[in-house]
Amino acid sequence: MEDRAQIQEHIKTQGEMVRRLKAEKASKEQIDEEVAKLLQLKAQLGEDGKHQFVLKTPKGTRDYNPKQMAIREKVFNTIISCFKRHGAETIDTPVFELKETLTGKYGEDSKLIYDLKDQGGELLSLRYDLTVPFARYLAMNKITNIKRYHIAKVYRRDNPAMTRGRYREFYQCDFDIAGQYDAMIPDAECLKIVHEILSELQLGEFCIKVNDRRILDGMFAVCGVPDEKFRTICSTVDKLDKMSWEDVRKEMVNEKGLSEEAADQIGEYVSMQGGMDLAERLLQDQKMCQSKQACAGLSDIKLLFSYLQLFQVTDKVVFDLSLARGLDYYTGIIYEAVLTQAGVPPPPNDSQNGASSEESVGVGSVAGGGRYDGLVGMFDPKGRKVPCVGVSIGIERIFSIMEQKAEASAEKVRTTEVQVMVASAQKNLLEERLRLLTELWNAGIKAEVMYKKNPKLLSQLQHCEEAGVPLVAILGEQELKDGVVKLRVVSTREEVDISRADLIAEIKRRTSEA
Amino acid sequence: MEDRAQIQEHIKTQGEMVRRLKAEKASKEQIDEEVAKLLQLKAQLGEDGKHQFVLKTPKGTRDYNPKQMAIREKVFNTIISCFKRHGAETIDTPVFELKETLTGKYGEDSKLIYDLKDQGGELLSLRYDLTVPFARYLAMNKITNIKRYHIAKVYRRDNPAMTRGRYREFYQCDFDIAGQYDAMIPDAECLKIVHEILSELQLGEFCIKVNDRRILDGMFAVCGVPDEKFRTICSTVDKLDKMSWEDVRKEMVNEKGLSEEAADQIGEYVSMQGGMDLAERLLQDQKMCQSKQACAGLSDIKLLFSYLQLFQVTDKVVFDLSLARGLDYYTGIIYEAVLTQAGVPPPPNDSQNGASSEESVGVGSVAGGGRYDGLVGMFDPKGRKVPCVGVSIGIERIFSIMEQKAEASAEKVRTTEVQVMVASAQKNLLEERLRLLTELWNAGIKAEVMYKKNPKLLSQLQHCEEAGVPLVAILGEQELKDGVVKLRVVSTREEVDISRADLIAEIKRRTSEA
Repeated sequence: MEDRAQIQEHIKTQGEMVRRLKAEKASKEQIDEEVAKLLQLKAQLGEDGKHQFVLKTPKGTRDYNPKQMAIREKVFNTIISCFKRHGAETIDTPVFELKETLTGKYGEDSKLIYDLKDQGGELLSLRYDLTVPFARYLAMNKITNIKRYHIAKVYRRDNPAMTRGRYREFYQCDFDIAGQYDAMIPDAECLKIVHEILSELQLGEFCIKVNDRRILDGMFAVCGVPDEKFRTICSTVDKLDKMSWEDVRKEMVNEKGLSEEAADQIGEYVSMQGGMDLAERLLQDQKMCQSKQACAGLSDIKLLFSYLQLFQVTDKVVFDLSLARGLDYYTGIIYEAVLTQAGVPPPPNDSQNGASSEESVGVGSVAGGGRYDGLVGMFDPKGRKVPCVGVSIGIERIFSIMEQKAEASAEKVRTTEVQVMVASAQKNLLEERLRLLTELWNAGIKAEVMYKKNPKLLSQLQHCEEAGVPLVAILGEQELKDGVVKLRVVSTREEVDISRADLIAEIKRRTSEA
Repeated sequence: MEDRAQIQEHIKTQGEMVRRLKAEKASKEQIDEEVAKLLQLKAQLGEDGKHQFVLKTPKGTRDYNPKQMAIREKVFNTIISCFKRHGAETIDTPVFELKETLTGKYGEDSKLIYDLKDQGGELLSLRYDLTVPFARYLAMNKITNIKRYHIAKVYRRDNPAMTRGRYREFYQCDFDIAGQYDAMIPDAECLKIVHEILSELQLGEFCIKVNDRRILDGMFAVCGVPDEKFRTICSTVDKLDKMSWEDVRKEMVNEKGLSEEAADQIGEYVSMQGGMDLAERLLQDQKMCQSKQACAGLSDIKLLFSYLQLFQVTDKVVFDLSLARGLDYYTGIIYEAVLTQAGVPPPPNDSQNGASSEESVGVGSVAGGGRYDGLVGMFDPKGRKVPCVGVSIGIERIFSIMEQKAEASAEKVRTTEVQVMVASAQKNLLEERLRLLTELWNAGIKAEVMYKKNPKLLSQLQHCEEAGVPLVAILGEQELKDGVVKLRVVSTREEVDISRADLIAEIKRRTSEA
């Protein structure tokens, strides 16, 4: 533990750093970070000057309490059953990777990667998503086809907005299909999966937007965007879910130096939404036709929709030319699912960080993905490609909604699965309680006892009411003499004597009914 | 991505660092670490001088492939059911904590903590165990009683020995009971849990050693160990499972400066093993009696054994005065479970790192824990204590054993749960296959299809054999005309025509049987 003098020394240095940053007019974000560190150090000294702990989790992270865990388990079970229904295996990878494994995969977002301190040995970073580790895994093990899911936490040094479910440590639930297959069949299955999961979780209305990187690139080409501006114009288009077209156009023309004419042509295209019919119409579009890439993308969208019809999910899927998605590694189909009728209104006081008012209207992206045929090849020493398509369910927002739903509902969330409490009405029966408890445990029944020699019957019953334990097995002198147990149903307060020999079967019968 | 010149610059600096360390006669471990980093940099340049990725996971970590995940899931399910049977809730905490939260909790082991790089903002470290975050959670949320389990990865910059299941990233499965309760009841339940889990996993014979920190401290006092040497002598005693008594004695006398007389008196005590009878005998021991602490510990051991008898687990529990356990925070009962008849012999070439030959005999600790009544108070601003007792199952060694068992067994480990493959014998039936597949998925059946327009029947059947898929639903022109599906049982090759209307019920019937 650091002593006072050391901490005071730290405070001094840190204070100078903050003053310097302010003098240098550093970014607000950077100054805030350093001020937070300064406050943390000061808090350590405490009001009375004694060393004190700061009792908190790191910025942008949270604990899950038992109630939140019960909800999380339910959501995971739904998602995992769906992944298993579609025949997926699962893998796991370390929480950190060699720093170099992540380098050059995320474009501008790389600055959000958490690095580990150099303590000797390899340079490491926390994983930023599950897709890059998956590609590394495939290349390292020379796997050319697999259908796998991976549920794990990823890390981003982003600006947290925790009430809206944006954390620095958060879960991703990824499903990916790797392998050389006939076009659009695995891609369509990924959309089917999103449809199934969002329907089963009952989060309200949703919509799955699809587009294709080749259509975007082709569109940029025919609209006269210079090659070197494709990526940066693409990331401006990506803001259309948060900004109005006027603002996006302004950014393209004023900040990124695109001609007004090109911007207006893009504007016409990105306002288009539809289904297979739109793909057919654009295949006839004189301008779009000039791009081979765009045509290939449009034909694939047509094929995709024919499979989506067979999968019975076209009701929720929209071909939307404004969908761009940020990450660099996509090469074909891309998609994103948004809740269109958020079950719960977003919290009112959460629009700092310059988030536009549109963002707080409460439409939220809850899943996204696409095809990335080049990523595995970046890891293979010989550049051998493994085509991949996948989807990532953004679970934190879903947790937030489910939690708020649970709060609002009258139904109590149970955090344990205890079926019986072994109780006694009289004193000096601890040993008898433990003996019965052992019988129940050994028979596989979920049971508990109060850890007191002589607990009051009332407090034992109260615990059952609070924790939702359905049954109480009550022992007393009389019951022991008669070789029975008084079985009490907590909800109805009904009590019956059951012989010891029949008790386990009776408990199993009553709890399987429930 | 870094370019060649930058990497060559790094190699130069790193080479100088290695030379300097060697000149300064730095520890072998430190030099090895830096050499590893140098080699990693050199590998990046590749033989042809081109930039290449190092395709590996970080030192001491590993991926889990689907087969390993299937085994891991099975082990976790056994452990989680046991924890739930004992009425535990579950929580989760972030993978990193404020650095200060971990400071001063682990004694000498603190040097093994992974720190994150200072990228602005708070100073963070990866969690070293689940106990300290649990104590932080209790203090932060002012929780005074809870029974919870937590299964998650922890991180230690230790010397890995992966074939023996020692990793830098590894799982812990913790069960803890916090609260002010009557003595030894929760403590006994922790031992019951270890007994249940190790029995159910069928890892072969095991033994659970118990001791008490108060007995150890009392014993040191009456043997004439000076107060300030308690901790260091305790950590030498802790080596008795790996070193002979002669070597331990030597270390006490020569390195730690203990008198020969004191060492010999300790030697007499630490050779004692027994049950409740030994506790009773030591309570009569003239010398031991002089320590009030030791007496309190011995009485509690007696009480513990009386509860263990009721729990029917005394067959595996041994009161062993040589058990010490490393961590600083224990205050009462401590215990450790070891496999005494390792199902699988340890690999022969794994005795580097100065491990003594005893260690490679293959007796391994697979669970440990104890009472820590002071830890939560270290986090509470007012020092309010919450008594806790818990156990941690060391799962990696168990995984290793289960994996080797699975290798040795003839039974195939399935990595998916697919019940039916939808196949076709003729061409141009992709749409019909997808239509049937959708029917099955919508009915909750786990089904898949090959992602090819016209796959060969043989390759479809081969896939089922390899992946252990029990049923194939075969479509052909004739079946479509007749409104039936040919259902094939993969293991027997038997085929029957089932009408489309009955198919789902028939598949459910056949797969619930299996």
